[in-house]
This record gives sequence, C-alpha cells and structure tokens, in this order.
Amino acid sequence: MTTKGLKDMLGRQGLTPVKEALAILLQELAILPLNQERLPLPAALDRVLANEICSPEDLPRHPRSTMDGFAVRAADTFGASQSMPCYLEIDGEVAMGQAPKGEVHKGKCFRIATGGLLPQGSDAVIMFEHTIPVDDRMIELIKSVGVGTNLIDRGDDIRKEHTALPKNHLLRPQDLGLLAGLGIGEVDVYQQPRVGILSTGDEIVPWSQSPPLGKIRDINGITLSALASRCGAQVTDYGIVSDTEEIFFAGVQQAANENDIVLFSGGSSVGMRDLGERVIEKLGNPGILVHGVALKPGKPIIIGLSNNTAIFGLPGHPVSAMVCFELFVAPALRLLSGIPASATPLKPSIRAKLDRNINSAAGRLDLVRVQLKQQGDNSFLAIPVLGKSGSISTLSRAHGYFFIDTQSQGIHKDTEVKVHLFQ
Amino acid sequence: MTTKGLKDMLGRQGLTPVKEALAILLQELAILPLNQERLPLPAALDRVLANEICSPEDLPRHPRSTMDGFAVRAADTFGASQSMPCYLEIDGEVAMGQAPKGEVHKGKCFRIATGGLLPQGSDAVIMFEHTIPVDDRMIELIKSVGVGTNLIDRGDDIRKEHTALPKNHLLRPQDLGLLAGLGIGEVDVYQQPRVGILSTGDEIVPWSQSPPLGKIRDINGITLSALASRCGAQVTDYGIVSDTEEIFFAGVQQAANENDIVLFSGGSSVGMRDLGERVIEKLGNPGILVHGVALKPGKPIIIGLSNNTAIFGLPGHPVSAMVCFELFVAPALRLLSGIPASATPLKPSIRAKLDRNINSAAGRLDLVRVQLKQQGDNSFLAIPVLGKSGSISTLSRAHGYFFIDTQSQGIHKDTEVKVHLFQ
Repeated sequence: MTTKGLKDMLGRQGLTPVKEALAILLQELAILPLNQERLPLPAALDRVLANEICSPEDLPRHPRSTMDGFAVRAADTFGASQSMPCYLEIDGEVAMGQAPKGEVHKGKCFRIATGGLLPQGSDAVIMFEHTIPVDDRMIELIKSVGVGTNLIDRGDDIRKEHTALPKNHLLRPQDLGLLAGLGIGEVDVYQQPRVGILSTGDEIVPWSQSPPLGKIRDINGITLSALASRCGAQVTDYGIVSDTEEIFFAGVQQAANENDIVLFSGGSSVGMRDLGERVIEKLGNPGILVHGVALKPGKPIIIGLSNNTAIFGLPGHPVSAMVCFELFVAPALRLLSGIPASATPLKPSIRAKLDRNINSAAGRLDLVRVQLKQQGDNSFLAIPVLGKSGSISTLSRAHGYFFIDTQSQGIHKDTEVKVHLFQ
Repeated sequence: MTTKGLKDMLGRQGLTPVKEALAILLQELAILPLNQERLPLPAALDRVLANEICSPEDLPRHPRSTMDGFAVRAADTFGASQSMPCYLEIDGEVAMGQAPKGEVHKGKCFRIATGGLLPQGSDAVIMFEHTIPVDDRMIELIKSVGVGTNLIDRGDDIRKEHTALPKNHLLRPQDLGLLAGLGIGEVDVYQQPRVGILSTGDEIVPWSQSPPLGKIRDINGITLSALASRCGAQVTDYGIVSDTEEIFFAGVQQAANENDIVLFSGGSSVGMRDLGERVIEKLGNPGILVHGVALKPGKPIIIGLSNNTAIFGLPGHPVSAMVCFELFVAPALRLLSGIPASATPLKPSIRAKLDRNINSAAGRLDLVRVQLKQQGDNSFLAIPVLGKSGSISTLSRAHGYFFIDTQSQGIHKDTEVKVHLFQ
C-alpha cells in the first residue's frame, strides 16, 4: 500500500499525487503477460504488433519511374545546355505493368510513364516537359540529369531483411499499406484488453427505466463503456450490482475473472468507498495500490490489482469518473494493448487564451473543463465550464480540458493554456 | 470548372490553392441532402444528431446531497462560530435510494450520504468533517453553511425543455451519458457516409498476390479503406479495376451509384489523369470541380461531383494519396456525416522544434512529414522524414506533419512548428 503523499483539506493522510499514482499503476501492469493472436492484415487496424516485422523483399523490387518521360543513360545528358543541346534517339517504350523489352543503349532512350519499370541500361528519367521533340524518333534536351533522377530505386522504400515495423508498433492505416506493399497478409498482434464495467449503489436504476423517487438513472455505465471501446477495449457491461457486500463482492469477482480491467463506479459516499476498498483487498494480492489522489475532480479514485486484473473504483459523479478514466484507465489500456510505458504518449493540444481568472488549491492537480471559441483564423478562447462534478451536462458542453499544476494557486485571465480535447 | 489559380512550375495553368479547392468542394457538398436513421442510444456513439434534443425532465429530478453529512436548514447555522457553536438534533436519516421519511424541522437535521435525496425542510448539507458529535442525538457546528451548499438542486444539471444537445452535435461518450441520464433511449442521427474505393492501373495487383515483373502490389486500397473507416464511413472496396476506359468508367459508375463518395487512385501518369477527368465529366453534372492543387505532395488530385456523389481521383503515390485524403476527403466525410462546414474543426497539434532547415517553393502549400523525438519533459524535436512520395515507409516512420505556408520559401532550423499527428 502506498499511502505516503499529501494530506487532503481535512488533514487526512493518504492522497497520492497524480503522477506518482500513475507511475505505481503502470509499473505493476508493465510486468503482466500479454496474450497474442494472429490476424489477417485488414483486421489488424489499430492493433499493436507483438513482433518486429522484417521486410521479406526489397520494396520496390525494381527501379521504377516517378515521372512521365524518357528513360535515359544519365551520362548521355552530361553537358547538355541551352547553347549545346543533346539529342537522344527514341528506341523503345516501356509498357505499363510489363517487363521492359530491350535495353537502352548509348545515345538512345525509351519512352516511359510514371510507375513504369526502368529498362536495362537506363539509370535516370528525364521529364517530358524538359524535352523538345525533334521528330517521332528524336528528342532534344537542354539540361542534364543525374543518375537516379526521377526514379525510385530497388529497395529505396525499404530494404530486404531490414525492419519494416518495430515490435509494439500501433498499426495505423499507412502501416497496413506498408505491410500490404510487402505482401504480408497476417500479423501477430496483442489481444485487445477486456474491460468489465459495473455500476453499483442502491439508488441507481438502468437508464432505460423510469426511476422511482429517490433513485437516479445510471449514467456511468454507458459513458465508461463508450470511453473504453474508443480505446480499443473489448467491453462487457455487467450492469448494476447491489452494494450489499456479498453480492457486490461476487459481482466484482466474476468481472475480475473474466477481464483484464474492471471498472466499478458507485456513490461517492464514505460507506461505498470503504466497501470498494474491502472488496479489492479481498479479491487477491497485491490489492489496493492507490486510494485517493490529489486531483480535482476525481479525488476518491481507488486503484487496485488482484490476480493480474487491474481494478478501478471510480467516483460515482460522472465528471469525476470520466476524468479518472482519462488520467488512469486510458493509460492502463494503452499499456495492456501492447504499447510500452516507455513510449511517450503524444498528446496533441490546442493553445487557447483563458477568458477569466481561475483559482486552484495548491497541492492538488486541477482539471478545468473548457469550451473553445474561435477568435480569428488561428486563435481560440478557452471558456471554463463550471459546475458540480455530478453534472454530466458540463461534460457535454466542454470541448476539452486543461490542467492547473499542483504547485499553482490559479491561472490569470488571458494566460495561454494547453487544451486537450475530450476524445 | 474552376481553373483559375496558380501556375505550376512548368507554367501550366490550373493549379488551385488548397484553401480555395477545399472551399469549392465543401460548398457543393453542403447543399446535398443527408439521410437519417433512428438508433438505440448505445449504437449512436460517434454519430451526429439530426435533431436538437430537448430535455424531457429536470435533471436531477430532486435535490440531492453531494457530500456525506447532515441535511440542515441553512438558517439554523447562521452565526455559528468557534466561540459560539450551534447545536442541531439528529432527527432522522435518509436511506439511499429511497424517498426521505419525514421533514427537517427548525433546530434539527437528518443524516444523509452522498447522492441521498434532500428531505423536506432542508436546504443545505453540512459535511461530517465540519461537525463534532456531541452524543448519538446531537451535533455541534462551528461554521455556518449557505442555502444550497453541498447539494445539486432540481434541474441544476439540465432544466426540462431546455436544449440538452444541439442539432448536428457529434455524440461522444459523455453525450451518451447525458442522454442516458435523461432516459432518452433512441436518437435520430445522420447515416454514415458510404465510401467506395477503387484502385486502377494495369501495373497493380492485389496485395495478397505475388506481382510478376513490372507489376506492384496495391497499397492504396487498404490504406484508404482504413482511413475512411476511421472517419466513420461505411467502406466498400471495389478492388482493382482496369484502366481501359470502358471498364474503368463502368467501375466508377457503379461505385458512384452505390456511394456518397468514390475514391479512385491510379498511376500518376498524364494518361491516367486524363482518363480520370474524362470519366468524371462523363458521369454527370457538375463534373470536375478542381483538377490539380498547389500542394506538395498531392498536386495531381482531381475532385469532381456527379449526381450528388463526390468523386476523388487521388494520386497513385501512397504518400500523395494519404495527404489528399487528410486535406480533402476527411473534411468531406465530416460534412457528409452531418457536421456543418461552419463548425470550425478543432485540430490539436504538438509544438516541436524543427531540427534542420527545410526549403519550399513559394506558391504552393508544402506538407512535411516528421518524426517526433522527446527532449525533456514537455519539449519535442521535429525531424523531417524525407523521401519520395512513392515511398510508403516514410509514412510509417512519421508521427505527423506540419505545413509550410504558400507564401513561405522555407523554414529555418529551430523554428517552432505545429505538428498534426497522423490519425
């Protein structure tokens, strides 16, 4: 248990700084074994390579023209100029998609189109636009071309036996393109992490029902499912589980047995939080890793690990639950998808000017939701969306968020902030 | 036809600036009718609302506590201080998920947990931690609370009949959460745009085949399919179609009849480009909108519209094809998904320092692929990935790209550039 760290506003010990909490979590997850599967190439989009892929051949396999023009021997053109043009005889033509017939001899050239295979003897291509036709059989050039001009040489794109893609690489559209170009039809990738989601609390009813007085519809189940799917997880929604200890334990245990990550979210009451902690400890070692972080909103998160399943007790308030997902669950999913913790996540942002002063308590990381408003061509105003963390509509009105650092006591109006978009 | 614009390096007329080409395209597409469909809420993730959604009820429907503590009448606490504490009698308890029994009378309070419904008579909640138990029936407070403290009031999140989400809103996870909270189980959204993809050229074979001499594997088909799927399109891959005019025309015509957008990519030869232009003109009005843009790579793109289907003739080189997808096809897909052209796309980026000088020809927009390398905690180096536009491996090595403006002749080493990540 790591309970060193900051005190909360009431002087309670045990709040872990966000950075430290994340490091503890990722360190534990990094040593878990990951399962692999073999997929046909088109199905491997957005999956992570379990092995390095070496090129089985040179790409391209033969030099090809990258322009419409004439395949020439570069040496034949040396010295050509306006005052001393050079003349080449058209001795053949490369038909598209076919092996060239014949060879380019000294003083001769072949007509060639973009993509055409360079004929024997030639080592450069001169563009149509840089030639002047003398007659049907002869062209004039007033400029020389160097060896390799306007062509892509054998192995220029990638060389045989060189690394095409490294292990742990996330397969984007262009990566599928590269593998297709090499004729690699199947790849070994890591399995998608399985995420089980439970909502708990006797006041929660399924969102499809009309809640009787005192109860509310479940918001977190559908939001967390959608967030996890977008991160590439296989999601199982276990619905609403009673917060009676016995029933709740059995529910979390089943989910933990069937998944790599379990998310439960419940009321933010002290009773619910204690229940969550007891259940995680009871499930198996190492148990609780973090309980409570120096973060607003999102302070009451509990993070645990039991028998190789990461278990997140997320705050019941929808805003807090989503913030905790972004800061802790998404990085965990990334790691369990096969992307090593050492690979810096690239987090693009939009710079915007803050439109009012925002206060913050030192000693915790604050996440401020904002709406972005364009001002002129390339400049944005960040308008904080204030509201309680129980208010889901504040998340719908927000485009993204920025952070106020642990050390800071607030940010002044007109300061430039880095806004991360909500997924 | 819009052929005003810049000359290319050989003095040919007809290159349209990128911004103008995009404006022409989006203007034509903005007036096309979009089809709708009704979906169950969980299936509507990443879809765009076809109607405004008004809240059918107040959310929350009743005031609820946001803390563990005591429901009080705020007026009873006024004036409480260290030197003059105030005392309240514990007269009941709110059971979670149930309607409170009884009413909070003057001088009394009810125990309440986070999420509990505020009992009649009470108008604020005082946190446990701010109270001192006197005995089982009495608490002492040394601080007053204002009306509305530590509770979320009826309709605080969203008010009945107010706009919950506007028309044309993209449904993110938190938006599904909001609609679930309101009990809205089905939504009207726009249909996903249908994209048909063809590769052409007699030198192209399916990537699953081993190409005979003179031919190469199709790279663009799988790359473009993956790019379009990621943009939320329904993709049909028509495979490789011969570039014989009759066969090619029939292939594009079928794809145009069955889709909202057709992408064909072929050799970048002049012959192929002429064929593409003839086919688009023959398919129907208005025909060609743009042929050739002042962009590198990606200059030879042809954009047309025939009988309400947008047709893109993309360059055959994989890098050029992908760049044209990012700059023209992705915005078209966004528009046809239901997001109006007037909504500024939010394009997050990563600031990075350029690690070498890069030259550019004025008069065209240059897109430079880069690899990002972290330096210190929050600073990145942008290393240009150079290579021919036929080289797919340059795209796999790149994290993203930055632009060199039409007016600029280059960018100096150490300049800060805005890097957009490849999807």
